[in-house]
Amino acid sequence: MSDERRARAALSRLAEPRDLVVHQLLEQVGAADTVARMCEGHGALARFAARVRTLNTDRDLEIAARVGARLVVPGDDEWPAGLDDLPVPPWCLWVRGPLTLGEAVRRSVAVVGSRTATAYGEQLASELSAGLGSRGWTVVSGAAFGIDAAAHRGALAVDGATVAVLAGGVDRVYPAANGPLLARIAATGAIASEAAPGSAPMKSRFLHRNRLIAAMTRGTVVVEADLRSGSRNTVGHASEIMRPVGAVPGPVTSMLSAGCHEEIRSARAVLVTSVDEVIDLVGDLGVDACEPLRGESLVTDTLPIDDLAVFDAVPFARPVNLDTIALVTTLSPLAVRGCLARLESSGLVEADAGTWRRARGARR
Amino acid sequence: MSDERRARAALSRLAEPRDLVVHQLLEQVGAADTVARMCEGHGALARFAARVRTLNTDRDLEIAARVGARLVVPGDDEWPAGLDDLPVPPWCLWVRGPLTLGEAVRRSVAVVGSRTATAYGEQLASELSAGLGSRGWTVVSGAAFGIDAAAHRGALAVDGATVAVLAGGVDRVYPAANGPLLARIAATGAIASEAAPGSAPMKSRFLHRNRLIAAMTRGTVVVEADLRSGSRNTVGHASEIMRPVGAVPGPVTSMLSAGCHEEIRSARAVLVTSVDEVIDLVGDLGVDACEPLRGESLVTDTLPIDDLAVFDAVPFARPVNLDTIALVTTLSPLAVRGCLARLESSGLVEADAGTWRRARGARR
Repeated sequence: MSDERRARAALSRLAEPRDLVVHQLLEQVGAADTVARMCEGHGALARFAARVRTLNTDRDLEIAARVGARLVVPGDDEWPAGLDDLPVPPWCLWVRGPLTLGEAVRRSVAVVGSRTATAYGEQLASELSAGLGSRGWTVVSGAAFGIDAAAHRGALAVDGATVAVLAGGVDRVYPAANGPLLARIAATGAIASEAAPGSAPMKSRFLHRNRLIAAMTRGTVVVEADLRSGSRNTVGHASEIMRPVGAVPGPVTSMLSAGCHEEIRSARAVLVTSVDEVIDLVGDLGVDACEPLRGESLVTDTLPIDDLAVFDAVPFARPVNLDTIALVTTLSPLAVRGCLARLESSGLVEADAGTWRRARGARR
Repeated sequence: MSDERRARAALSRLAEPRDLVVHQLLEQVGAADTVARMCEGHGALARFAARVRTLNTDRDLEIAARVGARLVVPGDDEWPAGLDDLPVPPWCLWVRGPLTLGEAVRRSVAVVGSRTATAYGEQLASELSAGLGSRGWTVVSGAAFGIDAAAHRGALAVDGATVAVLAGGVDRVYPAANGPLLARIAATGAIASEAAPGSAPMKSRFLHRNRLIAAMTRGTVVVEADLRSGSRNTVGHASEIMRPVGAVPGPVTSMLSAGCHEEIRSARAVLVTSVDEVIDLVGDLGVDACEPLRGESLVTDTLPIDDLAVFDAVPFARPVNLDTIALVTTLSPLAVRGCLARLESSGLVEADAGTWRRARGARR
């Protein structure tokens, strides 16, 4: 393993994500020299002393190997390109599972939401994710309770690709009750984290983690979120780096849709109601676009208002002549003739020896 | 009664709404001469012959008087100013009920939606309308089944002002089953129509009517609408004349919210979830504005991420010193000092002889 590679593994143990001093040093002198200077511990780098004392990268690599995790660094084929849009990208990623991460997230959507979801939210998260999975899109989420878990499950249900991004080490099962779910994701998808193996999932690391979910995907969909939901933090990260955000509406009586509604109102998110609309939002212009929804249209829905007036004036039972229609509608005979011609070609009225009646089966 | 006034009454019998020939003539020569020429029936005006033959304005005025309806024409105090924004305003209005129409709609909202509403939609329409009514806003709708009826009822329930705009004559009870509702509106609010007394509510007249609802109000809220709902026609009229439109979201699984969602997606409507948001949408800038919704915020929600990391590193049980916190968080002692000062002033941590612990009652 190269020194740079190994040094990035060390950084994931030594420095919290988004440490600006470390980020700038890394940009200037590379990872190996950054770690060397942190170990010397002069000046602003003294604050890493405690972690330097216990640094043992061989052990971290061993722990990773034991759970089948690999180290992925910028420049690797497996590195998700989107992470480079972040102001401070992760030093490295620890990745478990058979999916090649960079490839898997090339067409991916983050599906996130509240831990305390309703049945409505969980069902939608599962359905959207199953739809995305079956159409070749990877579902990325955070393996939390509620919407996250439902999203992963929906993708797994259709043998779709799914990626869980964790706040703690990839060897840590958190939340513990999602152990079986994480095991399934590790077996068929991918689990990724920027924290070194064994790292605890501290509160601040969830906020750091959210930016990875936002950045490695093509866009984020928030399915259900109360006003204070952490998923709105993910939305914030996504919109900061110009990733499209969708939000699923719900009953205005449900506080768990209030966060989604607020994101739509503030125009950080677009309202989405279906897999098609999600793919339209995050997909390639043109290629993945979807049509606006229209109702099953009755022919009369699209009639010009004069045609509609004429149609109204043509009875089912006894046929009427053109002049009668003109008098009833106050349209000129010429105008009525034009309307009748259009209505006849649409199969809405029938001519019968100079008179007109509604076609049988002409629906309103 | 002046000739012009009387002629406008005649026009409501002779010409369908939005007849462009009549509109242009009216603009050029006034109502009395327009009616005179229609009665002569030369050229393009021959098409009114049948209606001219049965014209009896005295009888129309009598029918109106019998149901307590009055004639309102442009220039009258009672004329709703917003109607003049229409490309083709109504020739006149027939109005029943104690409310002075122009005054009543000065602060008014159209609350509209599907005839086949769900309990969710009807409840919301009633609640929004009750909220609007109790805050001095007039609720305007079309007296149809479903959302319209629920809107009128909500306003009536709080003794709020409500106006029903009908497609047929103001003396015609349509739909018949809403007779008791229309009687209550006539007794305390107003019923208005641009059609002469006795006119049948034909399909095309509903579309004409919708533009009046859109134009006489400050804005339109669509509560529940399937993709083909006629209320989307009202939305179209409102947006054409630059009136703000709100749409209430609902479950994506309900086809009766699909029209609302589509209006929001196409940006013809703004998503609204409450009376405050409706008033914010249609009201005066600043005066009627509402704040974005926020969750009941825990103090830690708004912490900078370093403060959050420090807070996480301060235990409840045994106090720790500043250096320990610095080592755990990898923040500099100076940075930690700043974080602790902020956390202490927010009541989240307590100092105790040079050590720190979480304040009792500090919530996450």
